[in-house]
Amino acid sequence: MKIKGQHHQTIWLKDERTVQIFDQRYFPHQIVIEDLTKLEDFEVAITDMHVRGAPLIGVTAAYGLYIAALEALEQQDFDTYFTNAVKRLRKTRPTAVDLFHAIEKVVTTVNSTEELKKKSLLALEAAKLLAEESVVSCRSIGEHGLKIIKEIASRKKGKPVNILTHCNAGWIACIDYGTATAPIYLAHDAGIPVHVWVDETRPRNQGANLTAFELNEHGVPHTVITDNAGGHLMQHNMVDMVIVGTDRTTRQGDVANKIGTYLKALAAKDNNVSFYVALPSSSIDWNVNDGLTEIPIEQRNPDEVKYVHGWDGEKLSKVLITPKDSPAANYGFDVTPARLVTGLITDRGICEASEEGLLSLFPEKNESDF
Amino acid sequence: MKIKGQHHQTIWLKDERTVQIFDQRYFPHQIVIEDLTKLEDFEVAITDMHVRGAPLIGVTAAYGLYIAALEALEQQDFDTYFTNAVKRLRKTRPTAVDLFHAIEKVVTTVNSTEELKKKSLLALEAAKLLAEESVVSCRSIGEHGLKIIKEIASRKKGKPVNILTHCNAGWIACIDYGTATAPIYLAHDAGIPVHVWVDETRPRNQGANLTAFELNEHGVPHTVITDNAGGHLMQHNMVDMVIVGTDRTTRQGDVANKIGTYLKALAAKDNNVSFYVALPSSSIDWNVNDGLTEIPIEQRNPDEVKYVHGWDGEKLSKVLITPKDSPAANYGFDVTPARLVTGLITDRGICEASEEGLLSLFPEKNESDF
Repeated sequence: MKIKGQHHQTIWLKDERTVQIFDQRYFPHQIVIEDLTKLEDFEVAITDMHVRGAPLIGVTAAYGLYIAALEALEQQDFDTYFTNAVKRLRKTRPTAVDLFHAIEKVVTTVNSTEELKKKSLLALEAAKLLAEESVVSCRSIGEHGLKIIKEIASRKKGKPVNILTHCNAGWIACIDYGTATAPIYLAHDAGIPVHVWVDETRPRNQGANLTAFELNEHGVPHTVITDNAGGHLMQHNMVDMVIVGTDRTTRQGDVANKIGTYLKALAAKDNNVSFYVALPSSSIDWNVNDGLTEIPIEQRNPDEVKYVHGWDGEKLSKVLITPKDSPAANYGFDVTPARLVTGLITDRGICEASEEGLLSLFPEKNESDF
Repeated sequence: MKIKGQHHQTIWLKDERTVQIFDQRYFPHQIVIEDLTKLEDFEVAITDMHVRGAPLIGVTAAYGLYIAALEALEQQDFDTYFTNAVKRLRKTRPTAVDLFHAIEKVVTTVNSTEELKKKSLLALEAAKLLAEESVVSCRSIGEHGLKIIKEIASRKKGKPVNILTHCNAGWIACIDYGTATAPIYLAHDAGIPVHVWVDETRPRNQGANLTAFELNEHGVPHTVITDNAGGHLMQHNMVDMVIVGTDRTTRQGDVANKIGTYLKALAAKDNNVSFYVALPSSSIDWNVNDGLTEIPIEQRNPDEVKYVHGWDGEKLSKVLITPKDSPAANYGFDVTPARLVTGLITDRGICEASEEGLLSLFPEKNESDF
């Protein structure tokens, strides 16, 4: 997608020994490109959230292993160095499954040859492939979701399709397109008038910081709103559909996503607004059924609630919004029960948020087949 | 209620010619007491929100008229000066009905005598009476709401009653006790263990800034949460009841309150949590039935969404949280339909959120009686 009129992805090779990323901590206030040239750079970039979003974290780690393989060539013992690099990268973020999948894939590829020089080339190929697969998957989600937007647009007769989204499931969380944003970008690029209501998404404001940045740079009409506003908009027919991403989707179609998603799903149901969840197949957890009782919800640092980060006119800065002594609680995610979800937009097509619906797209997961 | 261990109200007479208030723009970071000694001070205090909350605005204007009457005594023409003061104070805030009611009451009282010196004394008496009436009304709301809290407490066997509130309907919006907070203070002071989940209430953060401040100073256990978190808490049985205030209650029991209230009401309904609205009789608009179609919703400055105000460690400061160019929308209120409200806690008792319910407490409003 575009930044300042130029097409970009979130991670790319500058030269043989340099991977480049956007240091996303500065979005939307500054566009900072960072060179990652040694293993340690990748560790820091993932741990300190220069990059975030499960798909992007995975691909970054994969490129990190490529650089680590190059470094290993200069060591006495390739294997020891490389195995240690794998360990270090696995420790960068504790929960994102994509990270472990991506590392696994690179390691398997690297192990498929005994030739040391070839190992580094294979690592690079594996990293590139992971990035490409993410792009293809997101584009596919976009194409399926586009059908829904087109259908609404045909009813709106030239008026923009108003789409509400929560948090950032955008291209800067992936490699390109994003998940929830993919149908939006495809619609916009196809000349269908869309307008996005961007929930700011407290406490970390990924909507206000990141989704608004993406849409703004790509030229998609949008309006930032507080997380409180969506219900009112839906009551007054100002939202045609909701699309959000997901961190984990259960076998029965429950969706764990950024805290506050559930409230928007309730409002959508109460006002007969479609509520869609966009997801790559990889985010489905086939081993979990009931999201509410089975998915543990991360509690994060209360200071994320008490302090708000932003641009003070000269630099990134933070302000305290509560009494210094008041405790705060910071639950990272909530679970939206399947009954509130109109449909799941996956890379294989759209289905009902239910076990039957998911199995219709993923028949290989049907246990009765075994 | 208490600040730094001392009992306070929000406005008081320091001496014959000086009214004092807390300049609430500095809460919770600094406690700033301001002297109001001339008419202009009152105009500025109301317009620039040194004081806010409909009941407090009304009483502040009433005291302003007392000071204006003293000033008028020093003029050649008492009436001209005083009438002009009334005009000026009526212009300070456009929407709060309490302001006009309070001014009306003082004017009527002042006009009841021809003796100029007596006029100023009567103005003072009227202002004091308005303040006292607000305290009595809030205390009464508190006593009725206390019954509900006691009932829940008896079921919880010593565990704290968890109450969620949105925005600030606290004592610093009134003279004392507050509306939504009155039952909470009375319960706490009676030794019933309560714990309050404080919605931060974006965009202006009245929850994080004001409600948390009040509760913290009075020693009521509380936790600040983002507006996104309440649904998750209710899903996990961490909320026993919700109490909010209201800006306007319709004849059929619909409630206009700070934006986001509707989302909490939906979550309460979905999770079988009681959702109560606390209100003084004066906030009932007997001429409006359907809140959703009949109550106009104020749109405020989008910069309230784009910039967050807080304490930067040395002073009050603001930070930008969106791209500079991204538009934002800022709807001030939403309407919670009566069907989502468990009950209305008024100064006359608790009733169902319906015309029948309201008329049972306010039989004089029964049109069929005419």
